[in-house]
Amino acid sequence: MARVLDATLEELAATGLQTLRVPAVAERAGVNKTSVYRRWPTKGALVAAALERALGHEAALPDTGSLRTDMRAMAMQAVAFVASPLGRGVLLTLLAGGEDPEVQAIAAALLRARAKGPRALFRRAAARGELAPRADVRTALTAIAGAILHRAFVERAPVTAGFVRRLVDLVACGLESARAAR
Amino acid sequence: MARVLDATLEELAATGLQTLRVPAVAERAGVNKTSVYRRWPTKGALVAAALERALGHEAALPDTGSLRTDMRAMAMQAVAFVASPLGRGVLLTLLAGGEDPEVQAIAAALLRARAKGPRALFRRAAARGELAPRADVRTALTAIAGAILHRAFVERAPVTAGFVRRLVDLVACGLESARAAR
Repeated sequence: MARVLDATLEELAATGLQTLRVPAVAERAGVNKTSVYRRWPTKGALVAAALERALGHEAALPDTGSLRTDMRAMAMQAVAFVASPLGRGVLLTLLAGGEDPEVQAIAAALLRARAKGPRALFRRAAARGELAPRADVRTALTAIAGAILHRAFVERAPVTAGFVRRLVDLVACGLESARAAR
Repeated sequence: MARVLDATLEELAATGLQTLRVPAVAERAGVNKTSVYRRWPTKGALVAAALERALGHEAALPDTGSLRTDMRAMAMQAVAFVASPLGRGVLLTLLAGGEDPEVQAIAAALLRARAKGPRALFRRAAARGELAPRADVRTALTAIAGAILHRAFVERAPVTAGFVRRLVDLVACGLESARAAR
């Protein structure tokens, strides 16, 4: 059913969540809509599955041998996502979505898919001794993703490689063992 | 004309930017709409002025004598803004606003108003010798504001005082002179 998930992403980028219709997805994928509903009973479940698959692929990050260069690669992946029509559509859906359970399902799927790459990245850094014993990686991920979001959508400034480098240097300081001692 | 700006904020929180109408603001403020238009020719200019005034008041931050406690107070102010109906309305307007010039004017006003408090905060920290000579305060502000945004609107997790403390500790590390030396 990879075809159905690809068609879901295409519809999502083209029309947004609010106007996305499951029959249109089925038609685009060339399958019967009942077979789509059998597997994914709601629109939210279908979109969440499509996002998890798409972002799970992306989440494989290069292993550069250094925490900071790995983090830069991860951040640049987030920048590319925010800049894509799909990423923009997903973010606006989340941000405007309030307490809609379909939107909640999508947010959860996005976070699950996005967590894979960073987990591996920080595991490698810990094995190399680059992470402080109590490094707060979760807050670091929130700060990096959030800074990219704020720069793109609130400040409306270009999210350049130079910005990403400054951001990673700032956040990495608090994660690295050599600097964590007071 | 403070009354008009207050009425603008009330309308903005009640109805959002898209459906806000200048005549309704004038009526709420008890003034003639032509006198509103004379001073603020567009809806964007009116809303920008109202936000700058409201957030300029807020921007006065306590002087606690420490970079980290000052930053925590600043971050908690941003948390309160994001949680308020006005703040939520402004952010969703910005995030969904695309290239609309009214929305651009509002984004610029928001950033101008928001810059005042942090500028004073970092000036004091520099005078106390708490800031590294080349501390990247702009990126630090983006990371703090962005992390709060991401936590509230993407992760949909509570933005607690504990989260703010972890965030400030993470970001302050990269700003402080004692830790900036490699």
